Amino acid sequence: MTITAAVLTQCGQPLDIIENIRIPVLKPGQVLVKIHYTGICHSQLMEIAGARGEDRYLPHLLGHEATATVIDTGPQVTTVAPQDRVVLSWLKGSGIDAGGCVYDSPIGKLNAGAVTTFSDYSVVSENRCYRLPETVGLKEGVLFGCALPTGMGMVQNQLSLKPTNSIGVIGLGGIGMAALIAAVNCQAGLIIAIDTNEDKLALAKKMGAHVTINPNTHPAADIVAEVTHGQYLDFAVEAAGSCRTIEAAFSLINPKTGKCVFASHPPKGDKIQLDPFELICGKTIEGSWGGGADPAQLLQQVTCCDNPPLPLQQLLSDDYALNEINQAVADLQQQKVVRAVIRLPGNGD
Amino acid sequence: MTITAAVLTQCGQPLDIIENIRIPVLKPGQVLVKIHYTGICHSQLMEIAGARGEDRYLPHLLGHEATATVIDTGPQVTTVAPQDRVVLSWLKGSGIDAGGCVYDSPIGKLNAGAVTTFSDYSVVSENRCYRLPETVGLKEGVLFGCALPTGMGMVQNQLSLKPTNSIGVIGLGGIGMAALIAAVNCQAGLIIAIDTNEDKLALAKKMGAHVTINPNTHPAADIVAEVTHGQYLDFAVEAAGSCRTIEAAFSLINPKTGKCVFASHPPKGDKIQLDPFELICGKTIEGSWGGGADPAQLLQQVTCCDNPPLPLQQLLSDDYALNEINQAVADLQQQKVVRAVIRLPGNGD
Ligand SMILES: [Zn+2]
Ligand SMILES: [Zn+2]
Repeated sequence: MTITAAVLTQCGQPLDIIENIRIPVLKPGQVLVKIHYTGICHSQLMEIAGARGEDRYLPHLLGHEATATVIDTGPQVTTVAPQDRVVLSWLKGSGIDAGGCVYDSPIGKLNAGAVTTFSDYSVVSENRCYRLPETVGLKEGVLFGCALPTGMGMVQNQLSLKPTNSIGVIGLGGIGMAALIAAVNCQAGLIIAIDTNEDKLALAKKMGAHVTINPNTHPAADIVAEVTHGQYLDFAVEAAGSCRTIEAAFSLINPKTGKCVFASHPPKGDKIQLDPFELICGKTIEGSWGGGADPAQLLQQVTCCDNPPLPLQQLLSDDYALNEINQAVADLQQQKVVRAVIRLPGNGD
Repeated sequence: MTITAAVLTQCGQPLDIIENIRIPVLKPGQVLVKIHYTGICHSQLMEIAGARGEDRYLPHLLGHEATATVIDTGPQVTTVAPQDRVVLSWLKGSGIDAGGCVYDSPIGKLNAGAVTTFSDYSVVSENRCYRLPETVGLKEGVLFGCALPTGMGMVQNQLSLKPTNSIGVIGLGGIGMAALIAAVNCQAGLIIAIDTNEDKLALAKKMGAHVTINPNTHPAADIVAEVTHGQYLDFAVEAAGSCRTIEAAFSLINPKTGKCVFASHPPKGDKIQLDPFELICGKTIEGSWGGGADPAQLLQQVTCCDNPPLPLQQLLSDDYALNEINQAVADLQQQKVVRAVIRLPGNGD
């Protein structure tokens, strides 16, 4: 048995499909999994583009949200066992932190972090594996690896959102849509969704946004002033990917009490520019490390029988095959899909 | 009876001493006070320099921390009465918010905000007056108007400073020194004072700073790394006045858990530039509106018999007369004094 993976050999170039990658002997805390579905998120677009600064790990595997079945476990692994269905996530949970791994392949050594997912099989760290409940399907389960904990976590853990509050969600990718889901769950009084893509705005409206704004058509500040009767937003959640969109989100919140939380990790070297007086007057801004969320807790929350199911299917693209991954990357880049999903061959779904 | 005041008639020019300013009939919520001492802080330097943008109120009075005795009260004033010794502060407390006031003078109308203090008498808003306890002298009482609530408040209200923590104070004016006092009171394990003025550093050491750094001589980051054994600061309090010093403070805190609070209100248009990834990884930054403090509560805290007296005298300059105010402004600007204090004529101290 060998691994087939999409590998980044050079930044700014398409991923290469490499076959016959050798599976190493598992070390303590390592887990061999068969991947079923994996998502592509903005982080991988940035990695592929080389926008994170010098990439010292080339060539390397990538991807950080997936569903999988455990095939084998290395020594000392206690939290998962062969046959377990799991979510793979970049967020650290319980179990051993086994670090990264190096594969032998026909093109030489390949590097991999503690979790990589753009492959049919993968060796991952125990603490990146979360047991997937029966009631969550393999395809939508992918979202529990990154988009849902980050987006829902930003709202649930970093804001004190009440039904009397107004909230804006800037950037309707997987994270923004997940934040929108959480805002709808909180029954926030006014939910405004902001994006430049009309299809995403239509989906946001369908999912519960009260107002949608395309800033290419209307200045967001004007619409916010209009629908809030000259007030501002209590909260803004930003997930649109750039320093300028973080600043735009910050500009929409209440000057004395508003809070802005952002997930965007813009290209290396880009800075956000803030007027310190606005911070003095009472605005606050916070970054988000995966929404401060624990995927295990979130999986428990959404599978609790009291809660209605989340509208996750609508966030997921049609399936791409692994050898179509460069097309999937391009479609995500061009905002044709909210979350691009790769279906690995031979999964039992 | 008339008022003599130092008046800003043109930004960038020395203040003019104007005599024979007429005392208006007191409106509801207004209080006529005789000023004893007033402090000059960085805010007035900025106002005088015109660094707050267009000044639409010229000519106007200024100053926002002082001690005074109440002479007369307008209708509906209930919290203070004639003969009361009071602290005047820009921070709003209880009582009516009477807004600003316009004086008739030999050079025409003079504008004044809800509290101004660079004069022998002043008409102020009730909610800017705080009863001064017997045990606090008129001169050190001045500090309760701005420097102490802001500086001590930043530490007491915006940080959770424990004896195990390290803290840096950047900028040793009145606010920075007050933050230092609060850090010493909290018995913080490592207190680092940072300023470019050696006299202030010596005073900070005397007041309880464990380490002092002059960034003109040694890079602050190097000294912090050395004394923390390669760690960073848990907290940084910034009160040095510029966006660059805010950024410097932010650079010294722990990448995952550090918190930076700043009081600086830099010139209009200046922006702080932050790497969003540092906020994502866990650093936080907050502005400070007067330390979130209530001067009344602070006066109660420091006059509680359980607490040792604060070393306030050391922060105050020798007395300047009102007609020496431009010299006092220059000395504060040139960092010759921590807090410049004007002594008004005929006070009973
Ligand atoms: Zn992601
Ligand atoms: Zn002040």
